[in-house]
Amino acid sequence: MPPTPERITAVDTHDIRFPTSRELDGSDAMNPDPDYSAAYVVLRTDAPDGLEGHGFAFTIGRGNDVQVAAIHALRHHVVGRPVQEVCADPGSLFRDLVGDSQLRWLGPEKGVMHMAIGAVVNAVWDLAARRAGKPLWRLLAEADPAWLVDQMDFRYLTDALTPEEALDLLRRGRRGARQRTARLLEHGYPAYTTSPGWLGYDDDKLTRLAVRAVADGFRQIKLKVGADLDDDIRRCRVARAAIGPGIRMAVDANQRWDTAEAIRWTTALAAFDPYWIEEPTSPDDVLAHAAIRAAVAPVKVATGEHVHNRVVFKQMLQAGALDVLQIDAARVGGVNENLAILLLAAKYGVPVCPHAGGVGLCELVQHLSMFDYVAVSGTTEDRVIEYVDHLHEHFLAPVVIRGGHYTAPTTPGFSAAMRPESIARYTYPGGTFWAAETDPLQPRKGQTA
Amino acid sequence: MPPTPERITAVDTHDIRFPTSRELDGSDAMNPDPDYSAAYVVLRTDAPDGLEGHGFAFTIGRGNDVQVAAIHALRHHVVGRPVQEVCADPGSLFRDLVGDSQLRWLGPEKGVMHMAIGAVVNAVWDLAARRAGKPLWRLLAEADPAWLVDQMDFRYLTDALTPEEALDLLRRGRRGARQRTARLLEHGYPAYTTSPGWLGYDDDKLTRLAVRAVADGFRQIKLKVGADLDDDIRRCRVARAAIGPGIRMAVDANQRWDTAEAIRWTTALAAFDPYWIEEPTSPDDVLAHAAIRAAVAPVKVATGEHVHNRVVFKQMLQAGALDVLQIDAARVGGVNENLAILLLAAKYGVPVCPHAGGVGLCELVQHLSMFDYVAVSGTTEDRVIEYVDHLHEHFLAPVVIRGGHYTAPTTPGFSAAMRPESIARYTYPGGTFWAAETDPLQPRKGQTA
Repeated sequence: MPPTPERITAVDTHDIRFPTSRELDGSDAMNPDPDYSAAYVVLRTDAPDGLEGHGFAFTIGRGNDVQVAAIHALRHHVVGRPVQEVCADPGSLFRDLVGDSQLRWLGPEKGVMHMAIGAVVNAVWDLAARRAGKPLWRLLAEADPAWLVDQMDFRYLTDALTPEEALDLLRRGRRGARQRTARLLEHGYPAYTTSPGWLGYDDDKLTRLAVRAVADGFRQIKLKVGADLDDDIRRCRVARAAIGPGIRMAVDANQRWDTAEAIRWTTALAAFDPYWIEEPTSPDDVLAHAAIRAAVAPVKVATGEHVHNRVVFKQMLQAGALDVLQIDAARVGGVNENLAILLLAAKYGVPVCPHAGGVGLCELVQHLSMFDYVAVSGTTEDRVIEYVDHLHEHFLAPVVIRGGHYTAPTTPGFSAAMRPESIARYTYPGGTFWAAETDPLQPRKGQTA
Repeated sequence: MPPTPERITAVDTHDIRFPTSRELDGSDAMNPDPDYSAAYVVLRTDAPDGLEGHGFAFTIGRGNDVQVAAIHALRHHVVGRPVQEVCADPGSLFRDLVGDSQLRWLGPEKGVMHMAIGAVVNAVWDLAARRAGKPLWRLLAEADPAWLVDQMDFRYLTDALTPEEALDLLRRGRRGARQRTARLLEHGYPAYTTSPGWLGYDDDKLTRLAVRAVADGFRQIKLKVGADLDDDIRRCRVARAAIGPGIRMAVDANQRWDTAEAIRWTTALAAFDPYWIEEPTSPDDVLAHAAIRAAVAPVKVATGEHVHNRVVFKQMLQAGALDVLQIDAARVGGVNENLAILLLAAKYGVPVCPHAGGVGLCELVQHLSMFDYVAVSGTTEDRVIEYVDHLHEHFLAPVVIRGGHYTAPTTPGFSAAMRPESIARYTYPGGTFWAAETDPLQPRKGQTA
């Protein structure tokens, strides 16, 4: 009798919420008071190594319970699967999750259900990388190109990228990979910081944080805009004065505008030499992004943190709608879908500058950019990963920023695991932090009537 | 002291599932075994009239609990609001729901959270129409155009449709409205039927149902395609032989194909004169629909049942990506968003042929098409509402089909209310039907490992 294979035995979920709205950290034109949260998932197995896989969807407060319920709805696809098989081929689980014909109706491939798939899939990759004893970026960068192609879902992509083209890009990406790995381990990957630019900060705080960002080695900062044009003009002037002409300054409207207003507003800020305008309008609006891009050049157009799947990214590239593609590690269907998006960007020659911040998004997405550098694009030119200095203390292997660069992780896994004491404290509503509050996350007065 | 206004006192939710997978009703190339379900919502008030507002999101089984959780997450926006105020201006509630900055992160305006908004908003319109003593189509058709414009959210639409243009379209739509109302009440609104064409049916059943459809007065039927080309060629031949050359036959691929395959497959079926190809590819893929449409003409391209909001419909119209726009009453953010979509279609001169079927989708969407006929487009030419003869017996005011036409509803409300005994029987998992089952909706063996 063959030995019983080790299996995934549990998909644990946690509703974790941090009270960030009290500090106006993370405030922007569309999100005035986010409570950064994670619908957190832990895969447990009966393997004697005791290793777990951790992943999460990021939300900003209310609805984190809905996100947890969505992850819960995927459990029957995961529990009981052989660990070795799943880790050797996460793409097979990805296809089963995306292809669940009944759950698919709730998307398809978008919103709450798709983010839940991303959380579970990322947890599998965390487990796979831990079992391999490698940080995820390295597992990916050292993987066989044909296996990587098998990890991707080309459905709805073949008019822009075929499996053969992806394989070719990955094979070409192998040239010089060893040298780039060494360079990455030595120098890290360039970051930019959004910490100075939240809408809720006053000019003094903006100046202080912008000056500090440059002193810390960042070559790009980002400002939130879009609530009030006069304010934005003043804040851009203040920020540009603080950083000088040689540092890049991106601005981010968080989907605030229609096309005409996006063009008018961006043009009004052009005097301060913004590097890119981010999320000028709806993340669904490929044609509007293309129109805005044509009108505001040389200011670049960036988007992606709310682009819900590879099909919309594909169209953004086909339509010439963006100059900078911003993947997010926890919005689409996990690593598998982001692999396809990185390859699409490579095919179209568009640099990838990931969205990060939130809860643990920096921890995750650094792995994808580092893989991209080592094994796909082969360059960090005009490429930066967003960095926000929030909530890293809750992670077991937090990002390490040195001289404006992400240090390459060496801990095995996807850097997704939170500290057990943070989970216990910030579990909503029963954790020790929230249990001590009265009516903790009730909406502000006047919001409902 | 002024009298205390009457308020909404409760948002009750029900997880209702029908075991439709056992009959292969509803089977298509992407959905082999749907269990038609409703995440059902009832608004209760403390008004002495005792009237309730009913609404629902339609799902196909697993995940209906996630959809219920999403509706639950909206309750704080609704409970406590004055009934009169909400019914006089559902658009205000719609904007609060869509604008909840924390919940918005879970979309924005797509997937589970947006369908939940649609369920709640539709329940408000049901309540408003019942209080007005009118069927919803009539309430809308008799409403002041300026008030209707206020009900719409023009965010992200103004590059295609401004409030001024919408007002102009609605004012022009008033001309002859009285005569069209009379004609509608006499003749009804044309329907087409999908009942013959489910993938799971054999040729004899297909023939029998197709012949019966024509005898019943339908001038269009629809066949599901996309699983196997040889089968589809045979089934189209069988269906065309059954209905003769004078009846329209649409085909529906339920998102099965990439662009090249959609063109190849549709071309292979062209000999049987299909009227439209529906959902040839991803509902997110505006550019692919445009490419397919250009290649398969004169076969028309139809889509919309999975188009998640007005922004994607707008682009479909801007890009010339469809010949037939298929609204769904329970996918987008309810009546308010569908008003905007109807006006967009009118602006671009594209006929609207709603998706229906499922649970109660026929009951709801007939009101929108009838409003469109009386007060917007002014015509039923090339316009048909889908009809499927499933599950109508569970509704208190089910659709009435006569001679291939939907009879105009006269019962006040949005026809959304289910029979209390159906709710009690099919509530999952505790209703009398499911409680008698063992492991009712567990996935099929082999699906998870």
